[in-house]
Amino acid sequence: MSSKYQALKQECFEANIALNDLGLVIYTFGNVSAVDRNNGVFAIKPSGVPYEKLKPEDIVILDYDNTIIEGEMRPSSDTKTHAYLYKNWEHIGGIAHTHATYSVAWAQAQMDIPVFGTTHADHLTADIPCAEPMRDDLIAGNYEHNTGIQIIDCFNERGLSSEEVEMVLLGNHGPFAWGKDAAKAVYNSKVLETVAQMAYLTLQINPKAPRLKDALIKKHYERKHGKNAYYGQ
Amino acid sequence: MSSKYQALKQECFEANIALNDLGLVIYTFGNVSAVDRNNGVFAIKPSGVPYEKLKPEDIVILDYDNTIIEGEMRPSSDTKTHAYLYKNWEHIGGIAHTHATYSVAWAQAQMDIPVFGTTHADHLTADIPCAEPMRDDLIAGNYEHNTGIQIIDCFNERGLSSEEVEMVLLGNHGPFAWGKDAAKAVYNSKVLETVAQMAYLTLQINPKAPRLKDALIKKHYERKHGKNAYYGQ
Amino acid sequence: MSSKYQALKQECFEANIALNDLGLVIYTFGNVSAVDRNNGVFAIKPSGVPYEKLKPEDIVILDYDNTIIEGEMRPSSDTKTHAYLYKNWEHIGGIAHTHATYSVAWAQAQMDIPVFGTTHADHLTADIPCAEPMRDDLIAGNYEHNTGIQIIDCFNERGLSSEEVEMVLLGNHGPFAWGKDAAKAVYNSKVLETVAQMAYLTLQINPKAPRLKDALIKKHYERKHGKNAYYGQ
Amino acid sequence: MSSKYQALKQECFEANIALNDLGLVIYTFGNVSAVDRNNGVFAIKPSGVPYEKLKPEDIVILDYDNTIIEGEMRPSSDTKTHAYLYKNWEHIGGIAHTHATYSVAWAQAQMDIPVFGTTHADHLTADIPCAEPMRDDLIAGNYEHNTGIQIIDCFNERGLSSEEVEMVLLGNHGPFAWGKDAAKAVYNSKVLETVAQMAYLTLQINPKAPRLKDALIKKHYERKHGKNAYYGQ
Repeated sequence: MSSKYQALKQECFEANIALNDLGLVIYTFGNVSAVDRNNGVFAIKPSGVPYEKLKPEDIVILDYDNTIIEGEMRPSSDTKTHAYLYKNWEHIGGIAHTHATYSVAWAQAQMDIPVFGTTHADHLTADIPCAEPMRDDLIAGNYEHNTGIQIIDCFNERGLSSEEVEMVLLGNHGPFAWGKDAAKAVYNSKVLETVAQMAYLTLQINPKAPRLKDALIKKHYERKHGKNAYYGQ
Repeated sequence: MSSKYQALKQECFEANIALNDLGLVIYTFGNVSAVDRNNGVFAIKPSGVPYEKLKPEDIVILDYDNTIIEGEMRPSSDTKTHAYLYKNWEHIGGIAHTHATYSVAWAQAQMDIPVFGTTHADHLTADIPCAEPMRDDLIAGNYEHNTGIQIIDCFNERGLSSEEVEMVLLGNHGPFAWGKDAAKAVYNSKVLETVAQMAYLTLQINPKAPRLKDALIKKHYERKHGKNAYYGQ
Repeated sequence: MSSKYQALKQECFEANIALNDLGLVIYTFGNVSAVDRNNGVFAIKPSGVPYEKLKPEDIVILDYDNTIIEGEMRPSSDTKTHAYLYKNWEHIGGIAHTHATYSVAWAQAQMDIPVFGTTHADHLTADIPCAEPMRDDLIAGNYEHNTGIQIIDCFNERGLSSEEVEMVLLGNHGPFAWGKDAAKAVYNSKVLETVAQMAYLTLQINPKAPRLKDALIKKHYERKHGKNAYYGQ
Repeated sequence: MSSKYQALKQECFEANIALNDLGLVIYTFGNVSAVDRNNGVFAIKPSGVPYEKLKPEDIVILDYDNTIIEGEMRPSSDTKTHAYLYKNWEHIGGIAHTHATYSVAWAQAQMDIPVFGTTHADHLTADIPCAEPMRDDLIAGNYEHNTGIQIIDCFNERGLSSEEVEMVLLGNHGPFAWGKDAAKAVYNSKVLETVAQMAYLTLQINPKAPRLKDALIKKHYERKHGKNAYYGQ
């Protein structure tokens, strides 16, 4: 009963469990996927399964057009959003969606998260974008597919790079984050939640808190991600 | 020493323990009940017993008129509220009452929790109602029984369905939640607390945050609870 | 090497450990004492000892005039406050002092905690008093002894009963709570912290939130503490 | 393969782990160092290593001019800041840097933390200083070295003693704390985070909350750190 996607399922399973361990989800909220670019498929959490009951063999395998390749269970209701992002952003290897508290609060406030400090700039130089809620006709249509369009349109309109900015807030909904693999997508979800809480507190303490100056944004981003980066091993 | 209500007591016991494990109560605060519709009885936590000391055999069995059918201990001081709800809302199978922090804060603020996002709309389409504090003569009377009346009157006046809206805030007191069984009532209590925190933060970040648009409310509720729901297994 | 105060030390030790387990203190912050009225002595935490290293035999025994009766270690720096309260309020059996976050925030805001809901009224009918910071000459004098005077003066001036109101905030400092024994003093410290957080959130959500109506204050206090109380076993 | 710096590495390792256990960091955020004054070297966390994977032998040993004396891994990207502080403040034995939430929020708000209560005054008599963000030319230069200069300039300009005030906020970045050894630096980081949260809440409850009166500041600091201190054993 072995599957050629065993390792992919395991990666996806572990990333979903991490989402729960990091306190980013409760019950069946949220979902993580991992892609196998060689085989043109991705693995995703089944819909509505509590994290405590999730097993690696429950993970569903689909292609980028949402055809189930392997798996007995119904995939996450957000699957089409993942598929659309994988199809259009070929560099990403994993995607995570949560309903983490502070991230959702900013999404519900329909506001970008301003870059207030180096914690933020260590990860990206832009404000974290909050995509507008979808038009009614698109909601009534192929909703989860259109959610993917909504995200990519937001990035295109603002001239953002999905290689640098690995996270977005969907207005009134919540965060999506991605990265080179599923673990990085989960990491970005946790960083986003942390930055969201810090920015919230910053504005409570000083409603006129200034945006981080450009020189510091650049310095912190470059020392971790630039050509001459000297962070890490 | 076996009881015909053994399974009912066990269900009620486990739901009460879950309330504690989920961080929704401290000490002896809160109580969960579970109903047995065939026998016309419900099981409820005994009054003032800490969760760490609670045992399944401590659970008290009563009929809908508050007559004790089985059990050595005094039932929860809120028992008559549970009984009234079971008697009048025949579809519900479990009820949970907590003093969870954010839920209580909204109740003390005497405000409905507006539907600000899809986390809320995944569970109900209405604002979470905050029932008015009771009239003084009703408080002085059969208080806990009248609390049940207060809840049902609130739903009737607002035209809310207790099958869709499975939670309420009692003004200046705290939340009650219900569902098809005791575990669902506990689940709804946790969701309510989470939504209450998100709505609080949303208003702190943006005091003019708009209500979720109708199309999104409908979409998210329907994909999970509608005729063509595709969430879950 | 057995001591006639072994049981008293054990009670005091366990209450101090509970303070730590409940998240009300960090490091060496806070202290709990327990009294033995028959022998006219009380037991208190030694000064500056981390909770992880505290042992029952470290507990210090003193009389109400602060004379050490038994113990090798220096008692808590707040010992004289405990002694003064035991000497003047003969009904109390335990005292707890913490630097719990929300309680301290209200003390630093120099504001009483208004009774906003039934969680509060289940425990006391008054606003939780915040005693004024001490006069400079009293601070320069016998400070910890004068802190005890400050607390009792506050209760006398406001006509509060220390039998009903088992907690106080010291302006700019933090909370003291007491009760029939050390465990009850710790319980009251935790309830105070919970009520302090709820009241804080209530005012954030609705700055005009009304005080709980008198009928509900009375009803909730009486059903738990009145002549015809029906809460608990 | 034993090292003459084995004990120093172990001290540094344990202090870094404590940072994680105390909830002051996530992932690879933060770093603690410990100095050996006799040998003129300090030990510091390697860059970008998660706390769960950190081992004592990973710790890097450097002199005050940032020359690596022992260790296979690249030291923390903030190493030059530590080196500059050790070189110029000869009394300090350990330094900790975190991105703890409330401390960062005050740093991002670019505000000193006012002394609002005795929890603060138990540790220092001054407001916790927030150093200005650096000039652009200094950021573009030897950034981490200049960060050390920024801290010491801030103390000199304000006439603060680094022996009394063992913590600082770097504007838009986050906190640094120090002390007689690495454990004390971690302790001060935790105290700073706690005081930062209390001060935040104080201003939310009462935006006009007064600064702690001088007599109480002096009393609380002196009873713990003055000539006639009577706190601790």
